[in-house]
Amino acid sequence: MSTLTMKSMLEQYVYTRDLTLKIVEPLEIEDYGIQANADVSPPKWHLAHTTWFFEDFILMHYKQDYHYYLEDARKLFNSYYETLSKPFPKSKRGLVSRPTVKEIMEYRHAVDKEVIALLSEGDDLDDEFYKLIELGINHEQQHQELLITDMKYNFSENPIQPAYKKASSLRESKQTVAPINWSSFEEGLETVGSNEERFKFDNEEPAHKHYLYPFSIADRPVTNGEFMKFIEDGGYSSPEYWLSDGWATVGKEQLEAPLYWGKHEGAWYTYTLLGLKEVNQYEPVTHISFYEADAYARWTGFRLPTEQEWEHAFKEEKIEGHFLENFILDEASDPEKTVFGSVWEWTKSPYVAYPESARPEGALGEYNAKFMSNQMVLRGGSCATPRNHVRLTYRNFFHPDKRWQFSGLRLAKDGK
Amino acid sequence: MSTLTMKSMLEQYVYTRDLTLKIVEPLEIEDYGIQANADVSPPKWHLAHTTWFFEDFILMHYKQDYHYYLEDARKLFNSYYETLSKPFPKSKRGLVSRPTVKEIMEYRHAVDKEVIALLSEGDDLDDEFYKLIELGINHEQQHQELLITDMKYNFSENPIQPAYKKASSLRESKQTVAPINWSSFEEGLETVGSNEERFKFDNEEPAHKHYLYPFSIADRPVTNGEFMKFIEDGGYSSPEYWLSDGWATVGKEQLEAPLYWGKHEGAWYTYTLLGLKEVNQYEPVTHISFYEADAYARWTGFRLPTEQEWEHAFKEEKIEGHFLENFILDEASDPEKTVFGSVWEWTKSPYVAYPESARPEGALGEYNAKFMSNQMVLRGGSCATPRNHVRLTYRNFFHPDKRWQFSGLRLAKDGK
Amino acid sequence: MSTLTMKSMLEQYVYTRDLTLKIVEPLEIEDYGIQANADVSPPKWHLAHTTWFFEDFILMHYKQDYHYYLEDARKLFNSYYETLSKPFPKSKRGLVSRPTVKEIMEYRHAVDKEVIALLSEGDDLDDEFYKLIELGINHEQQHQELLITDMKYNFSENPIQPAYKKASSLRESKQTVAPINWSSFEEGLETVGSNEERFKFDNEEPAHKHYLYPFSIADRPVTNGEFMKFIEDGGYSSPEYWLSDGWATVGKEQLEAPLYWGKHEGAWYTYTLLGLKEVNQYEPVTHISFYEADAYARWTGFRLPTEQEWEHAFKEEKIEGHFLENFILDEASDPEKTVFGSVWEWTKSPYVAYPESARPEGALGEYNAKFMSNQMVLRGGSCATPRNHVRLTYRNFFHPDKRWQFSGLRLAKDGK
Amino acid sequence: MSTLTMKSMLEQYVYTRDLTLKIVEPLEIEDYGIQANADVSPPKWHLAHTTWFFEDFILMHYKQDYHYYLEDARKLFNSYYETLSKPFPKSKRGLVSRPTVKEIMEYRHAVDKEVIALLSEGDDLDDEFYKLIELGINHEQQHQELLITDMKYNFSENPIQPAYKKASSLRESKQTVAPINWSSFEEGLETVGSNEERFKFDNEEPAHKHYLYPFSIADRPVTNGEFMKFIEDGGYSSPEYWLSDGWATVGKEQLEAPLYWGKHEGAWYTYTLLGLKEVNQYEPVTHISFYEADAYARWTGFRLPTEQEWEHAFKEEKIEGHFLENFILDEASDPEKTVFGSVWEWTKSPYVAYPESARPEGALGEYNAKFMSNQMVLRGGSCATPRNHVRLTYRNFFHPDKRWQFSGLRLAKDGK
Repeated sequence: MSTLTMKSMLEQYVYTRDLTLKIVEPLEIEDYGIQANADVSPPKWHLAHTTWFFEDFILMHYKQDYHYYLEDARKLFNSYYETLSKPFPKSKRGLVSRPTVKEIMEYRHAVDKEVIALLSEGDDLDDEFYKLIELGINHEQQHQELLITDMKYNFSENPIQPAYKKASSLRESKQTVAPINWSSFEEGLETVGSNEERFKFDNEEPAHKHYLYPFSIADRPVTNGEFMKFIEDGGYSSPEYWLSDGWATVGKEQLEAPLYWGKHEGAWYTYTLLGLKEVNQYEPVTHISFYEADAYARWTGFRLPTEQEWEHAFKEEKIEGHFLENFILDEASDPEKTVFGSVWEWTKSPYVAYPESARPEGALGEYNAKFMSNQMVLRGGSCATPRNHVRLTYRNFFHPDKRWQFSGLRLAKDGK
Repeated sequence: MSTLTMKSMLEQYVYTRDLTLKIVEPLEIEDYGIQANADVSPPKWHLAHTTWFFEDFILMHYKQDYHYYLEDARKLFNSYYETLSKPFPKSKRGLVSRPTVKEIMEYRHAVDKEVIALLSEGDDLDDEFYKLIELGINHEQQHQELLITDMKYNFSENPIQPAYKKASSLRESKQTVAPINWSSFEEGLETVGSNEERFKFDNEEPAHKHYLYPFSIADRPVTNGEFMKFIEDGGYSSPEYWLSDGWATVGKEQLEAPLYWGKHEGAWYTYTLLGLKEVNQYEPVTHISFYEADAYARWTGFRLPTEQEWEHAFKEEKIEGHFLENFILDEASDPEKTVFGSVWEWTKSPYVAYPESARPEGALGEYNAKFMSNQMVLRGGSCATPRNHVRLTYRNFFHPDKRWQFSGLRLAKDGK
Repeated sequence: MSTLTMKSMLEQYVYTRDLTLKIVEPLEIEDYGIQANADVSPPKWHLAHTTWFFEDFILMHYKQDYHYYLEDARKLFNSYYETLSKPFPKSKRGLVSRPTVKEIMEYRHAVDKEVIALLSEGDDLDDEFYKLIELGINHEQQHQELLITDMKYNFSENPIQPAYKKASSLRESKQTVAPINWSSFEEGLETVGSNEERFKFDNEEPAHKHYLYPFSIADRPVTNGEFMKFIEDGGYSSPEYWLSDGWATVGKEQLEAPLYWGKHEGAWYTYTLLGLKEVNQYEPVTHISFYEADAYARWTGFRLPTEQEWEHAFKEEKIEGHFLENFILDEASDPEKTVFGSVWEWTKSPYVAYPESARPEGALGEYNAKFMSNQMVLRGGSCATPRNHVRLTYRNFFHPDKRWQFSGLRLAKDGK
Repeated sequence: MSTLTMKSMLEQYVYTRDLTLKIVEPLEIEDYGIQANADVSPPKWHLAHTTWFFEDFILMHYKQDYHYYLEDARKLFNSYYETLSKPFPKSKRGLVSRPTVKEIMEYRHAVDKEVIALLSEGDDLDDEFYKLIELGINHEQQHQELLITDMKYNFSENPIQPAYKKASSLRESKQTVAPINWSSFEEGLETVGSNEERFKFDNEEPAHKHYLYPFSIADRPVTNGEFMKFIEDGGYSSPEYWLSDGWATVGKEQLEAPLYWGKHEGAWYTYTLLGLKEVNQYEPVTHISFYEADAYARWTGFRLPTEQEWEHAFKEEKIEGHFLENFILDEASDPEKTVFGSVWEWTKSPYVAYPESARPEGALGEYNAKFMSNQMVLRGGSCATPRNHVRLTYRNFFHPDKRWQFSGLRLAKDGK
């Protein structure tokens, strides 16, 4: 059996499926269909795709005589599983007005009913079944974060910039921030990655030896105020701070600040899930690309950490911080004492397979390994990550020019 | 006062506004927001834009202390009236999930209430007022046709190709078609265009002299069956039939048949507002570009008529045929005895101003004149045109590569 | 026989072929190969293409057992004659380093030798032969003008902006210009186009009746100084002056002045065939698109003339002015008393076939007719046009966004 | 002083500069200017750019009162040294017809004369001077290889596909090839990179510890015949073998074979520096992208080696093989017993900085480090690499979609 007991897995399944619905609760029907660029998907698509995952990998194999609830789900709501069927181009997902939101919700309920029945009664289910359920839950958690970041991007393109949520009173804005403190680490052959039995993605396996040289790492991410100094110092017009591909991106996209930032009467404003607000200089900078993170670090004279340094440095850290569940989101983020949550942190490590890792067979073989080119690893989780989704060894990854995730940076340096 | 009495104008206003709502009746909320390319608009946008027209040109001038009902209407639902405000880019109209459909409908009702009040009671309204109302009605009729053609295009991009309507039983499919008969006309100095008092667009004015050489014109449009022969004869791979820009378009867009056509097991199928159906060879060919119409004509050894020839030839024709109101649409179109309705007919005339025409001042000055480059004139109206919108002198116009309108062709030739 | 005697045709052939060589005389071998965008061709290509024309249409038909001198000429140096062979993409002409310039020159000499032999001795040659020779000569003259305008564009892209020629002392810069005078014309049915026996292109035929309304036309083209006032008045940022497609072009290409103009310390400079020089406000404005010409005219409250008005107005004008042969080119152009030469003048007429014109059969059928969409007619000739190439009825044509020709405008207006 | 004695450095300088001229010897003047896409440069540019390097980094600092020989060299022939001056866009290098080839050759001679004088007489030159000379020599060697690969690409775009060279008789075509043998290596903490005093690029420093897991590596690269089996097995239409970005590239560029390959009557042909020839199945496959190399490896069930495995495996290998100097080039390459030379071998390692490496200051700081994103490391050298340019620790790097280098692959696997 899997690493969760059957009972806890049923609870986890129900909890996760409900959390997804809670995320879309504030949406109007019209919001479910929009897709502002090819990187993002309409909320409706996320709802259907995560459901299709359980249908195709669970019900089709473990439920006798099961037929697809929606005839076209495989064609419309499949994603990168190119071995299964020729997928509908991602860039056109915003054109799928039918099936309707109501029909997608019925689809979710129908699939949930079947999966829950299997989880409640099934006694002769094999280990593979539980592994797939767990994978489906974690897959849905990934899409919960994308739901948040995609909606934010979609709304931001509407000239009236609608708010996703009202202001909460759970956390006050930061009014100050302490200077960076450095933690130092000795040279040595260390272990990175995971062989633990509890759930992890294939890209975290196996635990393996990696030689680290002496390094130091900052105790908090870089703040908006610190990043503004880079802007004011001409960071975006100084090629010497930028990687070659990064500088080309600055030129092509005419970048001059993080995504969503705009200047108005001398002050920086940013679109948030609450609408436009002034940038708080004491919160962690976010919505920057790897190129921007790398250029900022070079400007300071420091550098980004490698993913192995990051993992080694925070081995003892508790998984505490600012996560999806409280729904404060990007309303108010605290850079201090934060390792996990708030903002994903770009590392200087390209996303590659660990030594001796195996590529799984079949459609799920495409799960992570096929993205191992041109992407950079991010660590730590963000304000849109479900709390129990992230771990020390968790590896997130995006192309180095992407900015619509809650992505920031933490400084590191050689030696002490 | 204008050419309609006040009472008939109120009736016409109410009738037109209601007809628009009848068009969108079969839509789900999700359908209102989609936009499959930059040529088309989401249905929601059409509903709001036609309303904004009455609000901005009527209520803001004739209703004391009127304030915009939707604060952002001018920004979101303005179109080409670039002198009024910087418009939101047309290609992003599909991203405007808010205001919602419900809010747009309330906006329509609120504006209607005010306009109807003015039309019912207003005794001291000037001539300009009635002209603007008439223009607004005719403007809305143009958007009724676009609502149909845009929805068709939007739906066609969904892999499940939803049907807009169920089959009606009002008209049977054609089972045969008679050969073309030619009507011949003498040489002479003729009058083209209109000075009539009844409503017409500025681009139809003034009536003016134009010298015509002897010509003949076909008594019906070209059929699907006739066009298939052009395809079978290698028409799409023979540069000698094509204008240079047309041939470039064939190559770039890899054209090999009219829009919406696809071949399946030897037979041509086409997407229609009822879903996929087999192409009926006795109906008029439609959804072809000017380039395709011109190439087809050259292949036959004939040519397209000029717009002046077309107008002169059909001077005595009654405005009868297959129009929007019966909602058969492209379900079953009859090429015989058809001059008006069914399909717009490409002429060989570029869209230019008539001699001695004046360009109106102000925002409405942009109404037609600013499109007078790179577009070709179409005549006659289609199955999606409201019956009382079209006239003998009516000039429709589109870029020569556009195919999403109900556009076909009628042959002509020099001499008898 | 044709309209030139055999003897004068031989002279004309030799004269024209030599003039082409005189145009390229100042070039370095490296200059012959460059192509700065897909609109222009490398000088080498023009030299080969005009030669291929005589080879393919004359020698292959009138010289027994003739074989292509360059095996690949048909593939490489054919242009739009798509019926003959699949042409090499125009945009890649700058990559054809072989055959070398020397080989192309040998090709020219070899073909010239054969054509001259035919012209000198041939007694049993048919009328078609002489017509093709004449067409070939006129075709080469068109490429002489393109050689000049293409070289100018090519050189302008080199950061060191090389000069094609040294300053001549043949003409002094203009120091003043008289205000516009208007010539007025009565309403009436006039004749346009040509049935004359002397050479003309097919697009000038036939002479035909055209009804003109009263109009007036300026006695000189618009000057740089006048156009600067349009710029200073915000012409390039005022959508109300622009056609819709023109305004889109202004935005996409970020236009703010004629091609080759740049501002330096408050003064306008322009790249010319002599290198950079300050813009002379008393010379005709040139290198503007139809869109710019049309916007300028609307800004003044006047309009462009139609091509029929232009032709009618200058019926009695002698073909005198500033042409290619003196090689002053754009060094110093005089707007006064100029009808022919100096700058081509955009008209408001789309380029279409005249009534009752026939489209010739075969490859030469593509000569002019296939360009009859999306292009506008220009009249009058420029400083790069050979003197005996232009005539009253001559119709030049380009897409409305093109600016690399010597293209300007003359104002017209309705009535007196 | 540097690692070469002054005398040997003078010899090496002269030898290298002469070898560059030998490479361009077969070119016509017209060939020097062409540039078929933005990845490649015209031969003329390479000649000037390598000269400018010595001028800007040596003569401007070590030769008193030196002035740039070509006023515009910095603007035209600078490359990625963006901190020095705003460079002319790379994609337009093919438009620089002036300075002429003759002027560039004079520029080379003039700079050579000065550098040789310094190298011959200079007694008070500092260590930095010799380091820069050595860097300049190695920089020129990199451009020697690019000269070959760029010319090949440029010529291939000419429809007549000119040959760069005549067939040599130095080496016969392979008629057979032995099956792969595997060499196996134990697990352990190994040293990678170089601290040696002899010249190396900054990206090879410092020597550092890296933990290797047991692996095996093939004794020869993959052959054309082996790669054909991948093609025949549907490799290019099977998404399961491809990285996600690779599969997207296959679709966008419609790839179905290595660059330069085309099928004719059932046999594969390829463009080579001798013109078209049939693909020899016993030679190493080349002109494939990282994506193709990676997909091929996955299809076999093996994988690419990491760059550390490659370096460790061939520690004892002599630098022997098929290099630039014999000018056989891609005429006949031998996969057997080849480690260095013939074809660069893609590794599975993204190009990143070694631990504790320092980024040099100033313009030369951009030399290698700024390319450390989105590129993959290649090892071993090719038939176009100068023999003394490559070393065990040498790291070449290109974006994973690039194919115009002589790039192939060698298989590896986990364990024995």
